[in-house]
Amino acid sequence: MAGKAVGKQSVSFENPPVICGAGSVVGKKESEGPYGGYFDEVEEDPKVGADSWEEAEGKLQAKAAGIAMEHAGINKEKLRYIVAGDLLGQLMASSFGLINLGVPLFGVYGACSTMGESLGIASMLIDGGFADYILAITSSHFASAEKQFRFPLGYGNQRPRAATWTVTGSGAVVLRSAMAEKQEGERLSAKVEGITTGKVIDLGIKDSMNMGACMAPAAGEVIFQNLTDFGREPEDYDKIITGDLGMVGKDILIDYMRTRGFEITEQYMDCGIEIFSEDQNTQAGGSGCGCSASMLAGYILKQLEEGKWKRILFVPTGALLSQVSFNEGNSVPGIAHAVVLENI
Amino acid sequence: MAGKAVGKQSVSFENPPVICGAGSVVGKKESEGPYGGYFDEVEEDPKVGADSWEEAEGKLQAKAAGIAMEHAGINKEKLRYIVAGDLLGQLMASSFGLINLGVPLFGVYGACSTMGESLGIASMLIDGGFADYILAITSSHFASAEKQFRFPLGYGNQRPRAATWTVTGSGAVVLRSAMAEKQEGERLSAKVEGITTGKVIDLGIKDSMNMGACMAPAAGEVIFQNLTDFGREPEDYDKIITGDLGMVGKDILIDYMRTRGFEITEQYMDCGIEIFSEDQNTQAGGSGCGCSASMLAGYILKQLEEGKWKRILFVPTGALLSQVSFNEGNSVPGIAHAVVLENI
Repeated sequence: MAGKAVGKQSVSFENPPVICGAGSVVGKKESEGPYGGYFDEVEEDPKVGADSWEEAEGKLQAKAAGIAMEHAGINKEKLRYIVAGDLLGQLMASSFGLINLGVPLFGVYGACSTMGESLGIASMLIDGGFADYILAITSSHFASAEKQFRFPLGYGNQRPRAATWTVTGSGAVVLRSAMAEKQEGERLSAKVEGITTGKVIDLGIKDSMNMGACMAPAAGEVIFQNLTDFGREPEDYDKIITGDLGMVGKDILIDYMRTRGFEITEQYMDCGIEIFSEDQNTQAGGSGCGCSASMLAGYILKQLEEGKWKRILFVPTGALLSQVSFNEGNSVPGIAHAVVLENI
Repeated sequence: MAGKAVGKQSVSFENPPVICGAGSVVGKKESEGPYGGYFDEVEEDPKVGADSWEEAEGKLQAKAAGIAMEHAGINKEKLRYIVAGDLLGQLMASSFGLINLGVPLFGVYGACSTMGESLGIASMLIDGGFADYILAITSSHFASAEKQFRFPLGYGNQRPRAATWTVTGSGAVVLRSAMAEKQEGERLSAKVEGITTGKVIDLGIKDSMNMGACMAPAAGEVIFQNLTDFGREPEDYDKIITGDLGMVGKDILIDYMRTRGFEITEQYMDCGIEIFSEDQNTQAGGSGCGCSASMLAGYILKQLEEGKWKRILFVPTGALLSQVSFNEGNSVPGIAHAVVLENI
């Protein structure tokens, strides 16, 4: 097996790529949540001055990318690749939102696990010697997601207790090769020590209003595999942070991990549960690619930068839901990708 | 700049990954075209025994993956990753079609350029030392694509001359590290010498029935960049093969290349023009991720394997079209990714 591969599904980097810049942009509701003060920019206009929700989401990506590059002390000419994706059909937000950067683009899709996928691919390309700088980015938007997956907003349809609220926001990070020259003014927050890439897991759950249940087994599998591949216990991480399992998915995951022999209650945190407060009426919590990505760029990396956390496992979680597959009666499979982040 | 990067947008592999197995599955119409005899399997039932077009497309992927692994002399346990994508919203065909393989999955989206993207990422992960075996796969299906992007088939809508016909088919290749142990019975056809990753190019064309025109500038840019980065002339390639520009896109590309100082008429070939014969009534030709992928797995790799071609440039081309962005009046940006394949 290739040298950097660890165990069944993981990679340990020889020269861990560093995160040298991050940018987070969120909407008004997110700014009113408990983490409001951490985000770099709050966009009060839900349409971000655009004509459509999809275009608005693209503009969130463009803003987050700009902030991340600024924090990294680089301009777009330094970027060798962008690895980007979003929830929309044909990756509309990424395809249109990042066009002006004019950087070679790998479009990726892992539903709300996309930030884990893009960080994983970007880290391997850097450690593999193919790039010095890569931008990893994703986004979601409440209104574009509701339009894509559920009902027109004007219907005012009711939401069950297990439903989550798609975060309006984008998170971007600039990854740099550990060997590349340091830029003046860059903001080094963490290094990517390793990754564990997830499989599609389908336990046959068909309730698109309970995505936490759809994703929890995939999260559990990838966390279990990470611990196994690296020979670690949960306490080897200061935090184990999933993307958007919400209140329902959280309980399932913790139970699931117990059946696999691990107790993670102490370390566990979910971006979806954290990003909104209980009185914001989001039922089970926040969700969307932008949930874990904006929490990463806005809050999580700052904890690592300040040394409050030494090592964490960041596990964005995705529900492979499509309005077509759902309407055809299919289940909602889950996928999750784990990224080991360490302070520097 | 990192060691393996060449010029502005290209990579030259230190230990070029080898393609050690390939599988192609097409529908009935494709089997009746000029290349019908080259494909591994013909699926006469457009629904492939499934209940929906999307599920049918997923089954094409599962079949192509199985054939590719068989030709590579491996089972699924050998695969470290799958890099897969398709045209459908939320990558329905890949997400559902490959679930039973149980292999860590990177979902990718580059419209019909997806095979170029998946080959590029897979090759970098292998040359970077992260995997010994990776499956790169994509697909398209006439009926699922028409449903996703255009009109219900029952409308029998008319198709303009510039329109293309989405290929029903899937192409899969197994890439192996040049350093990994050779398997008994593997079918070595070519090595991936390098790649050139494309940018999103938007000249503002809004006609979704003329995707050739939307994609040609992206193809031209990436071919120009490949020739520039590697310091090559078109005659350094036995063939320069685009994915699905069709009759209209072909002329634009050749003109475009002349404005950039290169004459490619001699080497030029387009999978979309080739896959159907004129009397098959497909207007400008075939298209879809499955067009270039099935031609690669079915025909192109065999030419390299037999030494008829020594070195080619394979350039799948994508139109970043979504029914939502199109209905909102947006343009159709293009993207293309180039892969240098050499015989062994």
